[in-house]
Order: sequence, then C-alpha cells, then structure tokens
Amino acid sequence: MTADPIDRPLRIAVAGAGVSGPELAAVAEEVGRRIGEAGAVLICGGLGGVMEDAARGCAAAGGLTIGLLPGTDAANANPHIRIPLPTGLGEARNVLVARTGDVVIAIGGRWGTLSEVAMARKVGVPVILLRPGLTRGLELTTAETAEEAVRLALLAGGRS
Amino acid sequence: MTADPIDRPLRIAVAGAGVSGPELAAVAEEVGRRIGEAGAVLICGGLGGVMEDAARGCAAAGGLTIGLLPGTDAANANPHIRIPLPTGLGEARNVLVARTGDVVIAIGGRWGTLSEVAMARKVGVPVILLRPGLTRGLELTTAETAEEAVRLALLAGGRS
Amino acid sequence: MTADPIDRPLRIAVAGAGVSGPELAAVAEEVGRRIGEAGAVLICGGLGGVMEDAARGCAAAGGLTIGLLPGTDAANANPHIRIPLPTGLGEARNVLVARTGDVVIAIGGRWGTLSEVAMARKVGVPVILLRPGLTRGLELTTAETAEEAVRLALLAGGRS
Amino acid sequence: MTADPIDRPLRIAVAGAGVSGPELAAVAEEVGRRIGEAGAVLICGGLGGVMEDAARGCAAAGGLTIGLLPGTDAANANPHIRIPLPTGLGEARNVLVARTGDVVIAIGGRWGTLSEVAMARKVGVPVILLRPGLTRGLELTTAETAEEAVRLALLAGGRS
Repeated sequence: MTADPIDRPLRIAVAGAGVSGPELAAVAEEVGRRIGEAGAVLICGGLGGVMEDAARGCAAAGGLTIGLLPGTDAANANPHIRIPLPTGLGEARNVLVARTGDVVIAIGGRWGTLSEVAMARKVGVPVILLRPGLTRGLELTTAETAEEAVRLALLAGGRS
Repeated sequence: MTADPIDRPLRIAVAGAGVSGPELAAVAEEVGRRIGEAGAVLICGGLGGVMEDAARGCAAAGGLTIGLLPGTDAANANPHIRIPLPTGLGEARNVLVARTGDVVIAIGGRWGTLSEVAMARKVGVPVILLRPGLTRGLELTTAETAEEAVRLALLAGGRS
Repeated sequence: MTADPIDRPLRIAVAGAGVSGPELAAVAEEVGRRIGEAGAVLICGGLGGVMEDAARGCAAAGGLTIGLLPGTDAANANPHIRIPLPTGLGEARNVLVARTGDVVIAIGGRWGTLSEVAMARKVGVPVILLRPGLTRGLELTTAETAEEAVRLALLAGGRS
Repeated sequence: MTADPIDRPLRIAVAGAGVSGPELAAVAEEVGRRIGEAGAVLICGGLGGVMEDAARGCAAAGGLTIGLLPGTDAANANPHIRIPLPTGLGEARNVLVARTGDVVIAIGGRWGTLSEVAMARKVGVPVILLRPGLTRGLELTTAETAEEAVRLALLAGGRS
C-alpha cells in the first residue's frame, strides 16, 4: 500500500531569530511541542535560537523536524533536527522556509524573520505572528499564546 | 587596458510593486533618471509598475538597466531593461534584488517589496525607503523625495 | 528525550528522468524499496517517472519520502511523496536534490539528471550511477543492479 | 528616448573552470575579446581562471562584463568584471550562468562546468563546447577555435 495525498501531514514552518531569551525559548518550545502533538511536521531554518527551541519541543513530542540550512554542512543543524537539508543557498533559504510549509508561525524575530513573513504573504502562505517584534503594525494575524498560534495554524491548514 | 575595480559603477537596486499609480510612477521615474545621471547602474526585478518606471527614467538618462526576472523568458522584461537576466527562481529572485546592489531604494510597495527590504537589512545592504507603505514604523532610513533618495543612496554607497 | 544527531537516518537522493519505461521503472522502484528497507530517507524531485517509481518503492517499504518540487504547488507531488517541499525555484531545485542528500543514486536520465550528477560531484556528494545514459564515459561509480546501487550508497554514507 | 527590446545586446555566458593553464587562458581571452568586439555582453561566474581570462578579453575590447558570484562580496569578482552580482547562492549560481544568457560557450572545465552545460541543455539554452574535457562524447555542438565558438554563439543567438 502506498501513501495517499490526503493522508499527508500538515507542514508548519516556524520562523524566528537564531538567538532567543528564556521567555521566547519557552514559547517556541511549546509551539514545537504542540506541532508534534498535532501530528504535523515542523519545518525551520535548522539552526539555533527559536529554530532549536521549536525543534526540541517537536522532537520531544515525537514529531518530525526538517531543517532547511543556509550552509552546506548537515552537521550544523541543531541536534533536534531529524532531517537536515543543507541547501547551500545562504540567506535565500529563507524563501524556502517561507513557502514550503502549509502555514508559517513567526515567533519574535527581526529582519530575517520579517523577510520570511513578507515572502510568505507575497506567495499566499498564511502567517501567524506570535510575540511580534519588528512586524508590529502590519496587517497580520497575531496570536498571544503558543496554544493559540498552533490552533490558528491548524485552522489555516484546514486541520481544525 | 582592462577595467579597474575602483572604477566600477555603483549598483543601486530599486524595489517596488509591479503596479503603480501616476504619482508613484513619476517618483519612480525620477529616481531612475537620477540614478542614470549619477552614472550608477540600476538593478530591479525587470517587470512592470515601479520597476518599469524606474528603468524608463534610468535608460532615458543613458544609464544601464539590469532586470532580475522571476521567470525564464527574457522577453518578459519591460522595454527599458537593457540586460534582462531570466533567473527562473520565481519570487526567490527578490533575494537577488535585495543583495546584488550596493544599496536598495524601496519605492512604495507591499509584501514583495517588504521581503526585499527585510532581506537587504538582514544581509547588511543599506536601504532607503521612499513613500513607504507597509513598512511604516520600522527603523529604516526614509526619504521624502526622489532627489533625497538617490542622494542618500550615493552617500550609502560611498559616492557622495 | 530529544533526537540525537548520531541517530539521524541516512538521506539518499534519487535522480532520474520524469519519464521512464517499464524496465527503468522496475529498477527505480526496487531502489526505492531497498532505501526504505535500509531505514534511509529518500529525497527526490517529487514528480513522475523515476522520481515516482522510487518514491512508490520507498513508501511501500515504510520509508520516508521527501519531494523537492520545482513549482509552487504541493499538490503536484506524486502520491508517494510524504513530505512535498514546493521550492518555487524551477530547475534550480536540481541543485537541492544534488546536495541535500548524503549520497546520490542517478537512474538513467538525460540533461536534468546529468546536471544533478555534475553538481553533486562539484560539491563533493558521492554519486552512484545506475543504468547510465548520457553520462557514459565519465569517471563515476556505476552499479549494475538496484541492490548494488543501494549497497554502494549505504557504503558511501558510512552505513555499511 | 528609451531602449528598444530589439536593440538589446546578445548575452553570451562563458562557463569554465576557476583554474586554467596558459593554453586555455589564451583561448578564453580570445573568446572574450571576440564577444566584446561583436557588441555582445559577457556573463560568467565572476571569479578566476577561465572566467577571468574571458572577462579580461571582453573588457579590453570594450565589452560589458557581468559576474554572477557565488558569494556575498562583490570585491571577490575578478578585476575585469564591470558589474559584479554577488548572489550569495553558492554553487547554485551555476544555474544562473546556465540560463541567463542567450547562449553558453563552455571552455574546458570539469564538474562545475558540466553542471552548467547540462542545466543549459535542460532548459533549452544553446551550448557550444570549446576544448571539451569531461563532456567528451555527449551530443553537443563543439568548436575547435575561439573564433568558431563565438561565430556559432552569434549564430545560435540569431545574430549571424
């Protein structure tokens, strides 16, 4: 028996800065955990900070984690990434984070995250902002908690 | 005799929406004209709207215009692009617009332009906003007029 | 408990044409099956022909299948792809097929496959040719059977 | 007055290794010179070896030279590149060399050049091989001299 398209898991991309403080880390880890618990796949940039926090939460919940790395060495992925994909595209890999998921959850972040949010909106991928930093004021769906963010992501992906 | 690196012309990337109204068009054309008059090269996405307005102005002033097209057909470049480069990268070509110039001038625009602005800032390319739309509120250098925008761009590129 | 880097599954990229005849299809499906049976992950371009044949075999053996699509619509992935990644990069996604796996198995193919083989060699990813077409005569490791191809791939990936 | 599409110069991409010996260097420089004399634009990878030899010849003949750099620093372009475009895409910039010109002339080279030749053929860009190395045996147009290579390139580009 082979896989059926309608059985494909939802892919949720998590965008966020490569450095995070304790509060953001807890929120990102909870987002990751809820993604894994929902049976969705987590896509991220594969490095540290929010990317690592979310991957840790997702992996701990038994979820699949995919890291779209900017560099060429899979060994640079954080230890919670199950499938590292070393793109070698540099910062242009942000476009892949923005468009290869069914939906994007952006957690905090600055310019790099904003580039992912803007690109996702440009190509029509739904975006949910959690603890927005620079993006305050833009017309974007925002969530106050990790629970709300993942709930909105599942909704946007047709899995509510 | 061969070219000398220190003689290279400044490359100014112009970001902006693929549609523009009369007011924005006049501003974009003036920006292009001033880029050409300054002896700088204009890089843009090669299509219509602000990209075409700026290219028209630059070409009319005798400046070189380069279009980084999303598609695979050079014939889709607007008629004022001297060197069409059909990247075939889709919207990911925005990353090239953001990073291959010495400086970016963003004119109006929405999500696509914002993705270019954010990416430029991420990779350390100076950005000047002219008639900002969505990006209002971000910590970015803004100009009120086409003249000011190109003057700031030359300054950022070390050509003041 | 979180994932450990040393537990990461081997990633084997399969390159090959988007059309295949019955003989090539059987070989590609067997390669996919053996990849799945070995507990490795299959990466491919996500479309039809050899890509679909190999994905069918891998999915049937319970293996994970990832499709790096050229377009922007995940629905264009063949039905045996578990994780479609719509890159939107067009043919440039061949570079990702060439470099995101630990090793590449190229099955038949023409120019597109050759571009992946050459890029993989350029960036130092081991390549195993199975039923080579155009690439005959190049200095490349070749296999005569699907079994030999996957055995050599596991060897190249340090999993013999 | 603005530029007219039918006045656009032909864009000839030159592919070749980043290192070259004296014989190959002389051939590459002659190719570049003939490109410049024909009023065509030279596109290349912007670095050393064949890329630099061809750019030197083109620039000396007054031709425009564009370098699609793999890295992020324009200063890494060879001194004969008039317009460096630091793509930051790593080896994936080979796809741009392969597809942004009207025609490709490949001079010598190994895996990187072969990846450009194969990609160009994949996307339908005419290729002319000069002093082919690895690619011996493939069904490709070959030239024996720099003069013949540029003559065939102009022909393929409709400028004979």
